Amino acid sequence: VTDGNVNLLYRQRLNRYFAERGAEIAIHVMPPGESQKSMESLVNIFDAIERFGIRRYSDPIFAIGGGVVTDTVGCAAHLYRRGTPHIRIPTTLVGLVDAGIGVKVGVNFRNHKNLIGSYQPPMISVMDRKFLATLPLRHVRNGMAEIIKIAIVCDSSLFDILESAMDELLDERLQTDLGFRVIDHSITAMLEQIRINPWEHELRRPADFGHTFSPRIEMDSNGSLLHGESVAIDMALCCGIALRRGLLDDVSASRIVDVLISAGLPLCHKLSTPPRLCRALEDTMSHRDGWQHIFLPTAIGRGVFVEDISVDDIEESLRWVCELCDTGGLK
Amino acid sequence: VTDGNVNLLYRQRLNRYFAERGAEIAIHVMPPGESQKSMESLVNIFDAIERFGIRRYSDPIFAIGGGVVTDTVGCAAHLYRRGTPHIRIPTTLVGLVDAGIGVKVGVNFRNHKNLIGSYQPPMISVMDRKFLATLPLRHVRNGMAEIIKIAIVCDSSLFDILESAMDELLDERLQTDLGFRVIDHSITAMLEQIRINPWEHELRRPADFGHTFSPRIEMDSNGSLLHGESVAIDMALCCGIALRRGLLDDVSASRIVDVLISAGLPLCHKLSTPPRLCRALEDTMSHRDGWQHIFLPTAIGRGVFVEDISVDDIEESLRWVCELCDTGGLK
Repeated sequence: VTDGNVNLLYRQRLNRYFAERGAEIAIHVMPPGESQKSMESLVNIFDAIERFGIRRYSDPIFAIGGGVVTDTVGCAAHLYRRGTPHIRIPTTLVGLVDAGIGVKVGVNFRNHKNLIGSYQPPMISVMDRKFLATLPLRHVRNGMAEIIKIAIVCDSSLFDILESAMDELLDERLQTDLGFRVIDHSITAMLEQIRINPWEHELRRPADFGHTFSPRIEMDSNGSLLHGESVAIDMALCCGIALRRGLLDDVSASRIVDVLISAGLPLCHKLSTPPRLCRALEDTMSHRDGWQHIFLPTAIGRGVFVEDISVDDIEESLRWVCELCDTGGLK
Repeated sequence: VTDGNVNLLYRQRLNRYFAERGAEIAIHVMPPGESQKSMESLVNIFDAIERFGIRRYSDPIFAIGGGVVTDTVGCAAHLYRRGTPHIRIPTTLVGLVDAGIGVKVGVNFRNHKNLIGSYQPPMISVMDRKFLATLPLRHVRNGMAEIIKIAIVCDSSLFDILESAMDELLDERLQTDLGFRVIDHSITAMLEQIRINPWEHELRRPADFGHTFSPRIEMDSNGSLLHGESVAIDMALCCGIALRRGLLDDVSASRIVDVLISAGLPLCHKLSTPPRLCRALEDTMSHRDGWQHIFLPTAIGRGVFVEDISVDDIEESLRWVCELCDTGGLK
């Protein structure tokens, strides 16, 4: 299963790869885009599997694409015959450092991000960053948001690299040795977060930094904001709250904002209004069993969870973020 | 979540029960019947949950009904926010001895029984056989098929009880002490089968006896055959094959057939044709990763798995079963 973009770029090579190994395959192509992460796509994948015919445990399903493809196919594979093995081959940076390596699979439902899903580790994840060479730059920036996130949360040395070499990383689409180190660091840090809490019995998840307000913003943007872009907006907002509360110092806040800007990520958006952000928080609180569990950074690589974010916090931080956008950073 | 029949019979008492305990509830009613075990029903349940609003881990979903309700709600609960606790309250005999106690949840898809699903233990299963007092007799017989199955597979003393007291059990709808013992035996035997192989890593499952040919027959009957009825037809067919191969002696085969007949279960059906049974076997083989893994009884309470059932086996056993139907048993 792949998407229209990957199909266009790689179909011939994929066909050749499997043909040379004598493997009988069928390719199911999903249209690209977040809107395809849906129950309807699950049904289409089930139908494609039924047409082709596979055995329960011996015929794996390959998910070749970005997070939309790997999340949706992972969910379909989890459900088909109560579990068919799947292999993830992420082709985007978000896929490589986030969607491709976790155990969460799922689809959106009625404008709620990832509302329906399960936990399903892939049989294998094939991490080949050469795919990034054909990835549009905006999608490289998109994946960079998740790398910045994990650096802020738990890896200050990764943050140092990002800070010093963002331009090079983006220009080279992470194809250099430094790019490899960044991807490696990022995956290692993310895997450690997943390892200690794979089934989310603990709902205070540092890796959910940037994922409190962003799901609502992303879904309401109807595809005009990419996942990482809305995560960046959420991270900037939370930095502002942390700063205002005296949890984070000016220098660290400034470094975070500057890295986001250097990655070409947005800090604010017209959808980022207090009423929408409050609704977003309410949604997320149901998802966190009634708790806010909002991670606020206290330094690069560290943070705390708070439970008492108010409308005032949100409004004041929004003002701070808007000023930053006008001036292009804290400098 | 409940179905139209249970809603009619028990809604007032359910409302009173929860009201007395100060619990805020919303009731979602599914139409009754196997056709409701569908992706559409999952979507309807998700919508009902969204309307009501629940927290991730603290607000359980109750599934109050037969196997259709518990399987479908179990699947919805598994998927909603990647897992919301659910409580099963089976109201049918199939629910009490089979669907209510397992970890398999799921729905049918495009005329394939249970093609889509997962594994999700309930938080609690409430086993209250008083519900059987309002269950139509045909549905008591339906559940009896699963009790007979587990007895044939691994509990000869349970089989002895069924053999000696079937009329009383049915007449009293298992409300007597003996009925309690039968349900208790049956659940214990079934739980032991699940305990040793909960995630079906081993695809040779004795409890799948009667479940090789029956899914196709049941689905093709469009609701005219109940689950247990098609399981009975499958069990009779497999007894015939075991008998023909000399794996099962005449006396044991006769005892099995007589118990099925005494329970008022069918042994054959016009849908039971060799081409359909061969297609059924093919479907089931994909589900068993390419293997037949057919359980054939060698005695009451024991059996073996075979991998070489042929069309001849099926045709000859069918003839044997049809003769039995004409004569009303082996006697």
